[in-house]
Amino acid sequence: MTATERWLLPAGVEEILPPRAWRLDALRRRLLDLYWSWGYDLMFPPFIEYLESLLTGVAHDLDLQTFKVMDQMSGRLMGIRADMTPQAARIDAHVINRDGPSRLCYLGTVLRARPEGVSTSRSPLQVGAELFGHEGEASDVEVVSLMLETLRTAGARNLTLDLGHVAVYRSLAAQAGLDGEVERELFDILRRKAVQEYQRALAGLDLSEAHRQRLASLVDLHGGPEVLDRAREELDGSGATVEVALDRLSNVADRVQGQYPELQLHFDLAELHSYHYENGLVFGAFHPGQGQALARGGRYDGIGEVFGRARPATGFSADLKGLLECGDDGGVDHRQGGIFAPADDDPDLAEAIDRLRESGERVVQSLPGAKQSPEECNCDRVLQRQAKAWIVTTV
Amino acid sequence: MTATERWLLPAGVEEILPPRAWRLDALRRRLLDLYWSWGYDLMFPPFIEYLESLLTGVAHDLDLQTFKVMDQMSGRLMGIRADMTPQAARIDAHVINRDGPSRLCYLGTVLRARPEGVSTSRSPLQVGAELFGHEGEASDVEVVSLMLETLRTAGARNLTLDLGHVAVYRSLAAQAGLDGEVERELFDILRRKAVQEYQRALAGLDLSEAHRQRLASLVDLHGGPEVLDRAREELDGSGATVEVALDRLSNVADRVQGQYPELQLHFDLAELHSYHYENGLVFGAFHPGQGQALARGGRYDGIGEVFGRARPATGFSADLKGLLECGDDGGVDHRQGGIFAPADDDPDLAEAIDRLRESGERVVQSLPGAKQSPEECNCDRVLQRQAKAWIVTTV
Repeated sequence: MTATERWLLPAGVEEILPPRAWRLDALRRRLLDLYWSWGYDLMFPPFIEYLESLLTGVAHDLDLQTFKVMDQMSGRLMGIRADMTPQAARIDAHVINRDGPSRLCYLGTVLRARPEGVSTSRSPLQVGAELFGHEGEASDVEVVSLMLETLRTAGARNLTLDLGHVAVYRSLAAQAGLDGEVERELFDILRRKAVQEYQRALAGLDLSEAHRQRLASLVDLHGGPEVLDRAREELDGSGATVEVALDRLSNVADRVQGQYPELQLHFDLAELHSYHYENGLVFGAFHPGQGQALARGGRYDGIGEVFGRARPATGFSADLKGLLECGDDGGVDHRQGGIFAPADDDPDLAEAIDRLRESGERVVQSLPGAKQSPEECNCDRVLQRQAKAWIVTTV
Repeated sequence: MTATERWLLPAGVEEILPPRAWRLDALRRRLLDLYWSWGYDLMFPPFIEYLESLLTGVAHDLDLQTFKVMDQMSGRLMGIRADMTPQAARIDAHVINRDGPSRLCYLGTVLRARPEGVSTSRSPLQVGAELFGHEGEASDVEVVSLMLETLRTAGARNLTLDLGHVAVYRSLAAQAGLDGEVERELFDILRRKAVQEYQRALAGLDLSEAHRQRLASLVDLHGGPEVLDRAREELDGSGATVEVALDRLSNVADRVQGQYPELQLHFDLAELHSYHYENGLVFGAFHPGQGQALARGGRYDGIGEVFGRARPATGFSADLKGLLECGDDGGVDHRQGGIFAPADDDPDLAEAIDRLRESGERVVQSLPGAKQSPEECNCDRVLQRQAKAWIVTTV
């Protein structure tokens, strides 16, 4: 192996260098300030947990995404977090353990064994917020709004909000009598938006014509607000669950549009998200023409059930590294310039440097014998001795 | 397995909840601001790398500490970072690739397969700074000073600075003709401060009496500044490397003491640190009476050599979670209080909330039907309708 090969990074794994790292940190601060101002409390879930804690109650695809390692101390298998949402649900249910709603936010690296898409990271810096303990549409609206504020803070413009509702597919599948394995396979095909495969799969199932048609119609039920009217017609007679879901979609959409009149809304009743834990309204924010969501989330009521405490829940998350790229002003670098000081032992110089740093200035002191210019250190000024004092002058 | 057992965390793994997470974030910001003001540039090394990139040129004990996983995409073994210093060295050597000095800082979770001590974390939030490209004592002084400023920022008081120099032991061992395997074992015994085991090991080796005595004296060469004088006597005739090391220790100590007159200095010529990559001056900061360093570091010239570019290097790191505990004012929570708003659809209320949040206030809006008091949401004020306007009043 050559020296060059030693420092190639695995696919989907990144390092973040200056000055981009400073911009990322600035965006991180602005987002955490935003979540704080909305009443969301910061927490850092453990990076690694016993596999049972991490994966119980979550779906097979999250299991496949999770790196496993053996704990030398207990002999038990541990998993490295691939998604912080289920961790937040556990912490809400058992550690915070509040009766009323609780609002949590988090930010940290997660690792994924496989990238979700061709250009997606396997080590996203996941940032997100979750609202537990409320099942009404007000919490859907709050979480969607906070996701949109997140994108606004990152500088994203011209967004499309995708809205779907997982209960529509699930209810149609249940009514059609689809059982566990078959239902999961069909879910997975639909989730991948593999339209022809989905129609072939439906054709191969022993379903009544009404059930087949309703399930088949899902892949065409996407577009503007008229989609909800079409859905009410085409899914007529599918029962209360579907009606309630369509009403929820319509109400949340109206309230969000009221707050964000410039937002493009897109409905998609075949949108199911990955990881399977969502079971209500799901949503994602897109730049037009891009297939990858900038941020997404949804309702996943009852996720804490396996931990003994089912709670209504909704939330969203995003990759902070993706957010940094999406904005025109989201990555403004406020950390610019600086003062270059010579390598000199004069105590007066040391004092001058201390004072400047304490006042918020960046001071880089040269080292004896080092060949370095102010420019190389991104300094636009220098500290120079004039008469008996140390004075800052421009380069 | 019961529901309770599902959420036990592995030994040495923590979750950080509110309000501690906010205090941690506040300290994080202050430290990154500090590093920026000293000219250190932020970077985030990859969380996971091919094992060869991560471990080449570092020692066996870091290998043992590193969790390994198989990359499904390449079929190659990857390691999860257990220490960011070697990653910083690679990035300095090959990505930043500057001729003059470069200053880098970083902050992020590292994972360790085994805890270093009984009460140490296996997922520390490592924060640190590294200075590459300068081998003079000025860079040792700068890095020690920045470590002390880090601890001051975290609110630590009454610190002891431990100073040692790895070249003393290494030079004595080389002069005594100790070869690879034997030398490494002896190093490990000395590193663990297993004094009796060390003396027994020395007695069992075929050494001249002078070499044995000099090596044996190391375990007694600890204490105040008089230790350096004793060392000069007891190690007299050990050659230039040892003399240069003792001079370096003495000079760096004098300069640091000049800047920090209140600092307790402690010299220890048997202090070798773990991870083996250090090869020059090493240092650590302690609270009196505690065995675990709050922060530590050292010189590790030439670490980039296996990547084709040897550079002088020195740096330090600490566990941010440990720093949060060490200070009396390091964890001040500036995020307190807030305004509780009712669940009301009035657009005027929405506008009032927006305005308050934009002005930096924390506003938690109640949700329809939710049982929650202002106190539960840490709110000290409420938004109330008075006549036609929404007014903030104290609870």
